[in-house]
Amino acid sequence: MLEYQAPRQDLEFLLFDVFKVQDVWADMPQFADLSDDLVRAVLEEGGKLAGQVMAPLNQSGDQQGCQWQDGEVRTPQGFKEAFTELAGGGWLGLSGNPDYEGQGMPKLLGCLLEEMFWAANSSLYLYGTLTVGAAICIEAHASEAQKALYLPRLYSGEWTGAMALTEAHAGSDLGIMRCRAEPADDGSYAITGTKIFITSGEHDMADNIVHLVLARLADAPAGSRGISLFIVPKFIPDESGNPGTRNSFASGSIEHKMGINASATSVMNYDGAVGFLLGEENQGLAAMFTMMNYERLSVGLQGLGAGELAYQQAASYAAERLQGRSATGPQNPEGPADALLVHGDVRRMLLTVRALTEAGRAFSMFVGMQLDLAKYKADPAAQALSELLTPVAKAFLTDRGFECAVLAQQVFGGHGFVREWGVEQIVRDARIAQIYEGTNGIQAMDLINRKVLRDAGSTLHALVSNIRSEAVPPGLREGLIAALDRLEAVTAELVSRSRQDADLPGSAATDYLDLVGYTLYAWLWARMAETAPQDQFGDAKRRCAEFYFARILPRTLALEQTVLAHSSSVMAMDESAF
Amino acid sequence: MLEYQAPRQDLEFLLFDVFKVQDVWADMPQFADLSDDLVRAVLEEGGKLAGQVMAPLNQSGDQQGCQWQDGEVRTPQGFKEAFTELAGGGWLGLSGNPDYEGQGMPKLLGCLLEEMFWAANSSLYLYGTLTVGAAICIEAHASEAQKALYLPRLYSGEWTGAMALTEAHAGSDLGIMRCRAEPADDGSYAITGTKIFITSGEHDMADNIVHLVLARLADAPAGSRGISLFIVPKFIPDESGNPGTRNSFASGSIEHKMGINASATSVMNYDGAVGFLLGEENQGLAAMFTMMNYERLSVGLQGLGAGELAYQQAASYAAERLQGRSATGPQNPEGPADALLVHGDVRRMLLTVRALTEAGRAFSMFVGMQLDLAKYKADPAAQALSELLTPVAKAFLTDRGFECAVLAQQVFGGHGFVREWGVEQIVRDARIAQIYEGTNGIQAMDLINRKVLRDAGSTLHALVSNIRSEAVPPGLREGLIAALDRLEAVTAELVSRSRQDADLPGSAATDYLDLVGYTLYAWLWARMAETAPQDQFGDAKRRCAEFYFARILPRTLALEQTVLAHSSSVMAMDESAF
Repeated sequence: MLEYQAPRQDLEFLLFDVFKVQDVWADMPQFADLSDDLVRAVLEEGGKLAGQVMAPLNQSGDQQGCQWQDGEVRTPQGFKEAFTELAGGGWLGLSGNPDYEGQGMPKLLGCLLEEMFWAANSSLYLYGTLTVGAAICIEAHASEAQKALYLPRLYSGEWTGAMALTEAHAGSDLGIMRCRAEPADDGSYAITGTKIFITSGEHDMADNIVHLVLARLADAPAGSRGISLFIVPKFIPDESGNPGTRNSFASGSIEHKMGINASATSVMNYDGAVGFLLGEENQGLAAMFTMMNYERLSVGLQGLGAGELAYQQAASYAAERLQGRSATGPQNPEGPADALLVHGDVRRMLLTVRALTEAGRAFSMFVGMQLDLAKYKADPAAQALSELLTPVAKAFLTDRGFECAVLAQQVFGGHGFVREWGVEQIVRDARIAQIYEGTNGIQAMDLINRKVLRDAGSTLHALVSNIRSEAVPPGLREGLIAALDRLEAVTAELVSRSRQDADLPGSAATDYLDLVGYTLYAWLWARMAETAPQDQFGDAKRRCAEFYFARILPRTLALEQTVLAHSSSVMAMDESAF
Repeated sequence: MLEYQAPRQDLEFLLFDVFKVQDVWADMPQFADLSDDLVRAVLEEGGKLAGQVMAPLNQSGDQQGCQWQDGEVRTPQGFKEAFTELAGGGWLGLSGNPDYEGQGMPKLLGCLLEEMFWAANSSLYLYGTLTVGAAICIEAHASEAQKALYLPRLYSGEWTGAMALTEAHAGSDLGIMRCRAEPADDGSYAITGTKIFITSGEHDMADNIVHLVLARLADAPAGSRGISLFIVPKFIPDESGNPGTRNSFASGSIEHKMGINASATSVMNYDGAVGFLLGEENQGLAAMFTMMNYERLSVGLQGLGAGELAYQQAASYAAERLQGRSATGPQNPEGPADALLVHGDVRRMLLTVRALTEAGRAFSMFVGMQLDLAKYKADPAAQALSELLTPVAKAFLTDRGFECAVLAQQVFGGHGFVREWGVEQIVRDARIAQIYEGTNGIQAMDLINRKVLRDAGSTLHALVSNIRSEAVPPGLREGLIAALDRLEAVTAELVSRSRQDADLPGSAATDYLDLVGYTLYAWLWARMAETAPQDQFGDAKRRCAEFYFARILPRTLALEQTVLAHSSSVMAMDESAF
């Protein structure tokens, strides 16, 4: 059940044919000697780990869940061993800084592996992604000594990471958090307060857990400019860097959730815990946001992985399950019925999942590549593009991932609803990705307010201009140009109207993000169709591209209207009438 | 948690103002003396039962689930007592035949109560709706003696019903079922075979369980014309009609499911069980379908109830939860933050749920009214309309119900994902309604093939013509006419193209059903806005109508394109490429 095979052919097609990474990397000294063979070997090994080690624990992990007792958390059977393989294979340090024992690989490559790990076992990989995220934050903002102490141990997964942001009354609005930090005489800080929804805050899989905690100094300015970030390790490292004194914080309980049951989500109580300032005082939120661009792409990859996993199950079920007859006469006349695949409505569901998943994969790689260009070539256009597209990657990939999981479940009929088959788990697990790491509504507001209105749409315009210059298969050209024109017209109108209508950005945010997402997917399908080889694999790509343009891209016609509806359509209702 | 209040003001508005039931009923002798006061009293009592007896067990029922042991099923604590209240109050016999101790009330009224019961506790109400469904089938097709024996006991809920259709290899395709029936010397039949997914097939809440089982006689024609329907009671009634000998069938196990955990879904093994033919030999599927029109509307109401329940939770959360500030400046300057309700994106989610739910309620009542007109006035136009709209009611109400549950969950952020708050349960419970009682894909195929293409769209055209003659608020007129024109143009084109393109109906089915649904909701919003009183309640109705036209109806622009895409967009991909 829930078998998973890494889609290596598609990954290699995207890397080598669609994004021509050889050319991109040739220009970046860090990656110039990454041979195709090495990349293929990395994908192969990662795929094995995902399919053979992580995936087999996905369903049992969901069934067993995590157990909390007296502040300690026991993870499901086999998780510790599998995590040790994941960490020990160097996968968490894949894109880590080589100066501190990271592998120094491109983020782009990391994206491909992250998709596999998320697809194979999202609960298990959560312990990894939080570790990667903590390492990114430490690498960007910590002191030299802190980097030397923490990074190698995080890259190796000996120690894992956790991000402690949310408080019961402060979720999307971190500015009102209350957790406090008091300076101690030795340069450390005493951290006191309660955080909730702390993924991997406590578990039994590593020697130490490095919490990055947002807290407020007594004299800090109010709101989000008065928040500092602290490294708060479960065991305070001794002088040789080994886990020493147990720090004074503990898991108060774990949540019982809709999904990702094998991921431990803790209430954490910090009781004067020893913390070490990470970066500057009162700059904590900014530091946390550096990490968030990466984490948000990673959570987007969770949605993508869910879509791929769901597709694999549903496609194989639809090929084997015999039910009903084709509208054009029996296709399996010897059998009692035809395969589900003969039915147009079943194909509609499968092709929707596939078209959204394969475009999503291309999109995530494009964003990953911008992160690499920004980081390693200090390319300001790539930096702007990565900032523009990060909220889209987080929200659109996870919204579509959930849509895909639900569609794939539908292909199974009643078998999709019972736990035995495992498909319903994909739906339950995928749902969280739309919520955590900033809800998708928050992403949409970030896109429209900070990434589009702030520069009057010019970063987006630059991207669209580049797209217009690309070669496109003739059959898709007209549709793509219409979609690009529509996006640009809507964006210009939105920029202009938002000056008078302060509520418009919020009212239109989600629909606008979807409009951007569907339009960019059209571009990526055009590029994939243009690049696809003249063989069976390439034929399927071209069919999927046609399906996308005929059956999914028209959603932008609705979004064009709804984005430009006056904000009064949502704001006019009296609050008391809700 | 998960508190539920029946939306009585809206129900009364729809009944008395929008659908003017007094005028409709005045013309029907059976209902002519149904006073407004009596109707209000029924709604009030039903609302109390739903809110005070059923809803408080919704979450505990989910947590405890059902327990299977040695063929017997224990339902969650309190379920038996609550079911006794539901049944004892006469609610299951509300629209039942008064000749057999039913209450003889209109189906339309039954719809309103069903929505409440589904919303309050869908697992618990499932035991009721299967009982109502069995009674409808028996009333329509059974012998006089069978009616006299079974109907009073089903209406009173002393005995409950179950429908045994699905087999492991035969779900959507019932024609290939294998369960067999052999005539016995005493006029009964011996039923042998295994059925799966049998809702309420075994439980501990009633003295007897009346299974309606589809099975095949030895000499029956192959396929769906060779299926007969049998009454197979758990305890064979003795001569005085009391439960006698235990019949030879049993629950082999119950399913562990994504949701509706308190509803027992059994594998049923019939081992030469005594069955009594219901209706004619080999006419079983047709008999089952009579019942299905009612059951399908009922399942639609499950989706509707989920939307209403979800809205109530999310709206109250959004009013109380303080997070962030309004785009137009602080609205709650004394507090740490503004209520979620100030944010356009939160309002978009809430208004989507509300606009879809309130239109859905009006739609379900319209369909219920057609069922009454068809049954009690033998009105052929109403009969045709009820057949046309039943698949839309089942699929569109449940698809939108699930969409609404997911949106409402999103309003809660992280709290929507943890079990404690109960909102995630609404999502898990609502999901099944898209699958059972004929998947929504099956509904869409039924709509397009049997209800639209078969009469070349004339029933739909008659409905649209009637709609065109209605008064509409000026601000909505243009939008409504455009939507009606669009639906008619697409339908005509579909009818014409389907003659050449046999795969088109299946490929377009789901999108076409959605197009019908959204267009009819526009009509119902126009009618509600036109009818709404000049007070606060009426203002909210008008705001919702505007929201619907501005933000939801545009989805039909996309559907217009996708329905008319050539079927090759889904059929061209080679089967081996999936």
